[in-house]
Amino acid sequence: MRLLRSTSLGVKALGNSFNQISRLSTLVPTIKEVLNKPPPTESVITVNGHIKSLRTSKNVGFIDISDGSSSETLNIVFPTPEQVLESAHYKVGQSLSVTGKWIESKGKQNFEVQYDIQDPEHSMKLIGNVPDTFPIQKKTHSLQFLRSLPTLRHRTASLASILRFRSLLEAKLVEFFSKNDFIKVTPPLITSSDCEGAGEQFKVESLRKTDGDQGFFGKPAYLTVSTQLHLEILSSSLNRVWTLTPCFRAEDSNTNRHLSEFWMLEAELCYVDNVHQVTELVESMIRSVVEAIKEEKTGLADLINARFSKDEAARINERWNSVLSNEKWPSITYSEAIDIINQVKCKGRSKGRLSWGDSISTEHEKWLAGTHFQSPVFITDYPAEQKPFYMPRSDEKIYNPEKPTVACFDLIMPDIGELVGGSMRESNHDNLLAEMQKRGMNVAEMDWYLSNTLNGSVPHGGFGMGFERLIAYLSTMENIKDVTAFPRAPELCAC
Amino acid sequence: MRLLRSTSLGVKALGNSFNQISRLSTLVPTIKEVLNKPPPTESVITVNGHIKSLRTSKNVGFIDISDGSSSETLNIVFPTPEQVLESAHYKVGQSLSVTGKWIESKGKQNFEVQYDIQDPEHSMKLIGNVPDTFPIQKKTHSLQFLRSLPTLRHRTASLASILRFRSLLEAKLVEFFSKNDFIKVTPPLITSSDCEGAGEQFKVESLRKTDGDQGFFGKPAYLTVSTQLHLEILSSSLNRVWTLTPCFRAEDSNTNRHLSEFWMLEAELCYVDNVHQVTELVESMIRSVVEAIKEEKTGLADLINARFSKDEAARINERWNSVLSNEKWPSITYSEAIDIINQVKCKGRSKGRLSWGDSISTEHEKWLAGTHFQSPVFITDYPAEQKPFYMPRSDEKIYNPEKPTVACFDLIMPDIGELVGGSMRESNHDNLLAEMQKRGMNVAEMDWYLSNTLNGSVPHGGFGMGFERLIAYLSTMENIKDVTAFPRAPELCAC
Repeated sequence: MRLLRSTSLGVKALGNSFNQISRLSTLVPTIKEVLNKPPPTESVITVNGHIKSLRTSKNVGFIDISDGSSSETLNIVFPTPEQVLESAHYKVGQSLSVTGKWIESKGKQNFEVQYDIQDPEHSMKLIGNVPDTFPIQKKTHSLQFLRSLPTLRHRTASLASILRFRSLLEAKLVEFFSKNDFIKVTPPLITSSDCEGAGEQFKVESLRKTDGDQGFFGKPAYLTVSTQLHLEILSSSLNRVWTLTPCFRAEDSNTNRHLSEFWMLEAELCYVDNVHQVTELVESMIRSVVEAIKEEKTGLADLINARFSKDEAARINERWNSVLSNEKWPSITYSEAIDIINQVKCKGRSKGRLSWGDSISTEHEKWLAGTHFQSPVFITDYPAEQKPFYMPRSDEKIYNPEKPTVACFDLIMPDIGELVGGSMRESNHDNLLAEMQKRGMNVAEMDWYLSNTLNGSVPHGGFGMGFERLIAYLSTMENIKDVTAFPRAPELCAC
Repeated sequence: MRLLRSTSLGVKALGNSFNQISRLSTLVPTIKEVLNKPPPTESVITVNGHIKSLRTSKNVGFIDISDGSSSETLNIVFPTPEQVLESAHYKVGQSLSVTGKWIESKGKQNFEVQYDIQDPEHSMKLIGNVPDTFPIQKKTHSLQFLRSLPTLRHRTASLASILRFRSLLEAKLVEFFSKNDFIKVTPPLITSSDCEGAGEQFKVESLRKTDGDQGFFGKPAYLTVSTQLHLEILSSSLNRVWTLTPCFRAEDSNTNRHLSEFWMLEAELCYVDNVHQVTELVESMIRSVVEAIKEEKTGLADLINARFSKDEAARINERWNSVLSNEKWPSITYSEAIDIINQVKCKGRSKGRLSWGDSISTEHEKWLAGTHFQSPVFITDYPAEQKPFYMPRSDEKIYNPEKPTVACFDLIMPDIGELVGGSMRESNHDNLLAEMQKRGMNVAEMDWYLSNTLNGSVPHGGFGMGFERLIAYLSTMENIKDVTAFPRAPELCAC
């Protein structure tokens, strides 16, 4: 039986012939695996994990172990008073390899492992030791304290659950885009284009002494701030493309919402002729992944299991349900948003009223989504002046030359404000060129991008979403630094 | 019926209430979608795509369109002599939006779209134009020529199929690792650690004027050459972790096999005690994804459809079958490899013979896998001197203090040589520290990495694989620059 196999069984002993290795036959199963597909009761099995807590009473001792595969821990039971003494040799943080009897449990889990020191088949090996100063103890640590332990903080149940959640979310996104015929592509991170990020880009240089005056690449090279322009080019070949890839911004902001290195989900699709087709994609994507993770045992349950309080679990549920509301998310134009803010939020007050052309602040966004609509909300058709060169003017049905707007949108979420930004992209070469010239851009350096519209680009649009913001929103984490494994920010590059 | 919906149908017209948007109801279906799930014959549908070829005879005209969603093209049929004249207005590269009748076909595809100029329900709109100089024509272009067109080359069927293949391969890898309880993580690309890539790292600096002497991050920062050390730390929390992420090397080599920016698949797993458990994972991973893509319509078929010749299709099949052989891939030690090379390849010749301690060249690797074993082959337990500081010594059963080796492996493939490299990782703090000191490393700068073994790290191992090398191998592409969308190399950073 597979579960009984020893880890030290060499591969050669398994025989030379097999048709398929669909299981990793030489590995000890994870705790997730034995809990989800329990072996027969009374069988002798081996499990591995870190000690999360120890409890002893007069007659019985317990060690809870976790191997990080799920938020669930497995109880190792020491069934007699003599054994309790044995259990007292261990401490939180150490890692054990335990061979014992798989039995039904009266505790929180349905099963546990009984370790009997006198059974020759049983064994308990200390396979990872910690010093007495090991800082991750059973008590709850503040997230701020944990940030001071960049290499150890994911040993906590809560931060480990965020990383598992992130992994699950990504897998569900891969499924969503595959199902809808999107091709995942890998635009370059090193780019010679600096049109979008002036001043907020990182420069890349090799340390080689043999580089010429123009450096390793023969020209200045930067880390990308957005892969959109390259994605647009690939969408001309593949119709629907997406990517989930690191992006970099040398912003001065050391806030809860910003990272210098973050993962961005971007998608571009061809053959769309209005911005509502792009917002439908965004809504469909977010609804689909939330539905999918809600169905997974390891989704909501794992996250909530590992979190600190009932209140937090309730907030997670509330956010997910708000995303999955029966009503389609509202969509208003920028001009309508300004009117609502002035007529409802600023009713009867002259102070705080917005004029057409003003920016909508994060506070206003949070009010619109959180209080007024109590739902995610799309705001479309912002003033052209607030937006980049590649956005075409709004649909002729709503375009007003006195107040020129472009066919774009932001997705605004309750509590956090902007989560997604997108637009139609100018596919008419002459319009694009004219706009770039009007803005004084260096057209010659952008000839690669212009080659797309010059050569048969079709009406298309797309969007970008900071992946960490989605994770933080769905897990109700307030600081984006807690949903990324090793955050990067000004003065922050610990390892 | 959904397929009949016009693209210009605004979202608001769809009604305000729905329980689930699982389909993108305002989008015109892709060509892949209509071919896989055909609408009723005789229905009027809209399809979009680029013109790949035009053919006319006296009485009938054809335009083949592709939208990049699959390698299959869709025939637009002009059924009468008058219509043939109409079809002559178009040229290769232009994009069309065609509304016509979905009918059964006698051609290569089972269905085609009949366009009747006189039917008021039918329409044909030019939605993307190309100049007469549009370089991608129906004829076969050399890959070298296409490399000179970085923004247009993926409009060819062959290179578009490689990007679709890459996307599919990644999706299957996500499935494989999910199934085996691996958590996908995102180690940082900007790192202050330069221990592995001295001289081959890119330095990262912001363009801000406000940075202090030590730069944006308060210390020198580099682009990562491998995420392994960070992955090891996360594996201590999550047991099994993997990543697929860009890595960067400022190598001088401008070869078929090297990129300055490439995607690396790396995995680390805990609770393993010998290197054969890691090789089992590698073999299982590659077999699983090849099996999975072979089953997908869009896998092998898509790739072969879009390639140039029958010979190439046969080579693809041959490679995949070699991976899926019934025999477990052989595993030999470095010492055994040296013996085989000397006894078989260099039989009776003194020239070319290898001594213990010599490097095994790529030519020798290709001979071992391609000629001698005719199979992928693992070579394990290389001399310690050839390998990095974090590899522990070989299993005591084979360790020879006269010829010290470490518990590591390379996976060698026929035709290309090394595809994967991996090892056990030293989990004993004292051994690790001693080795680093012996090699004269700056131990203080590596304290973050050492904190892992100091705090309960368990026996673990892992591997790294250049993703582009896997894609190139399975698609039989010879130049790695043709399997990445926008390759980066010395003097190569076109956009």
